[in-house]
Amino acid sequence: MKSLNVRQLFDYDTWTYTYLLWCNKTKHCLLIDPVFEQVERDLSLIEKLGLNLKFVLETHVHADHITGASLIKSKKDIKIVYGSKTGVEGADIYLDDNEILKLGNENIQALHTPGHTSGCTSYYIDGYIFTGDTLFIDGTGRTDFQGGSSSDTYDSVTKKIYNYPNDTIVFPGHNYNGLTMSTIGEEKKSNPNVGLHIKKEDFILNESKKERPYPKRFDVAVPANMKCGKK
Amino acid sequence: MKSLNVRQLFDYDTWTYTYLLWCNKTKHCLLIDPVFEQVERDLSLIEKLGLNLKFVLETHVHADHITGASLIKSKKDIKIVYGSKTGVEGADIYLDDNEILKLGNENIQALHTPGHTSGCTSYYIDGYIFTGDTLFIDGTGRTDFQGGSSSDTYDSVTKKIYNYPNDTIVFPGHNYNGLTMSTIGEEKKSNPNVGLHIKKEDFILNESKKERPYPKRFDVAVPANMKCGKK
Repeated sequence: MKSLNVRQLFDYDTWTYTYLLWCNKTKHCLLIDPVFEQVERDLSLIEKLGLNLKFVLETHVHADHITGASLIKSKKDIKIVYGSKTGVEGADIYLDDNEILKLGNENIQALHTPGHTSGCTSYYIDGYIFTGDTLFIDGTGRTDFQGGSSSDTYDSVTKKIYNYPNDTIVFPGHNYNGLTMSTIGEEKKSNPNVGLHIKKEDFILNESKKERPYPKRFDVAVPANMKCGKK
Repeated sequence: MKSLNVRQLFDYDTWTYTYLLWCNKTKHCLLIDPVFEQVERDLSLIEKLGLNLKFVLETHVHADHITGASLIKSKKDIKIVYGSKTGVEGADIYLDDNEILKLGNENIQALHTPGHTSGCTSYYIDGYIFTGDTLFIDGTGRTDFQGGSSSDTYDSVTKKIYNYPNDTIVFPGHNYNGLTMSTIGEEKKSNPNVGLHIKKEDFILNESKKERPYPKRFDVAVPANMKCGKK
């Protein structure tokens, strides 16, 4: 049996993927990007599996949903974890680039991957990379708010995320087409935004031409998420 | 690298899971339960991955969506596969209980698991079981039409599906709560319908009391699916 287990969870309203990871030996677990409205489901699953929740990790300050981090912390003895460049108030741990967090016998590595927002953080553990809204399957997160930068996205993906082996599983923060996972090799080859066949200047130009709607929940979600989801 | 690869796909309109399985050595692949409206997505993914589609397998005659099987067959040289108890017309292969289908170097085993419908078939391959609408995560498929039988569901799950090891991954045909997978061990322990703590007579009684809405697409989907999805 593999030492690490991963379970993907889906929020139907916001197309958000939440991830539950646990160390089989110690039963310590963490959640990446829990959604406020799904906290009951997530904690039920953790209880059913007999796991001990230690951390909630966030890939960034979400603009489309409120994180469940603070609600979970009001119920469980956990630590809230953000990347150190997010500017978020009230987290317990701020991980620097390449810093390691221990999950039982496993190591999870934070990677600063700015682009969608200036504080975006990806997480690598044991053959899996959780890319939040930096790298999507066949796409990338928008870069037109929250300190977003297409130049940064290109560099984060091609200089940091693509350093992992081709068979590394990519688990993104969203997908809007019913796809659940990908690999580094697939994205390098086929991603129409940041595949290796796309030049940086072309990506930046393409992104600058895109017209994006104002996110419906932006004005509620971002202020709450800057305080770990406290409403 | 494992020889078998599995990719889960989701149809947002009908909450249906489709599965793409492939043999890494030969690149032969198959789809389980493709949805008509998602055929373009599914074939794009197969092309992107450089795979050679050999089969479409169905777990049963669906009442909530039309299968993509015939549409795929009109575009690709594939064989449509059903369980031999489904009564479906026009399939290429009808698998008996315990019969094996070769996918490249891999063996996929059909299991007759009646209950949701009289012809329901589950498929086991290399540590994964695809249970269609027989066994759900924390539930079971309704048994009030298409030759459904709560007695059969109970026996199919407890006497056939639960024979596999506890760490076998359960991939169901649907989930309505954002859960994507489970294990045999979890369902044995916690499934509120057919966990090992539930007696057969109690399950049958509970099912008989449930009031279920008439499926919106029943009158269109079932006749089409009895002919492999030909409209």
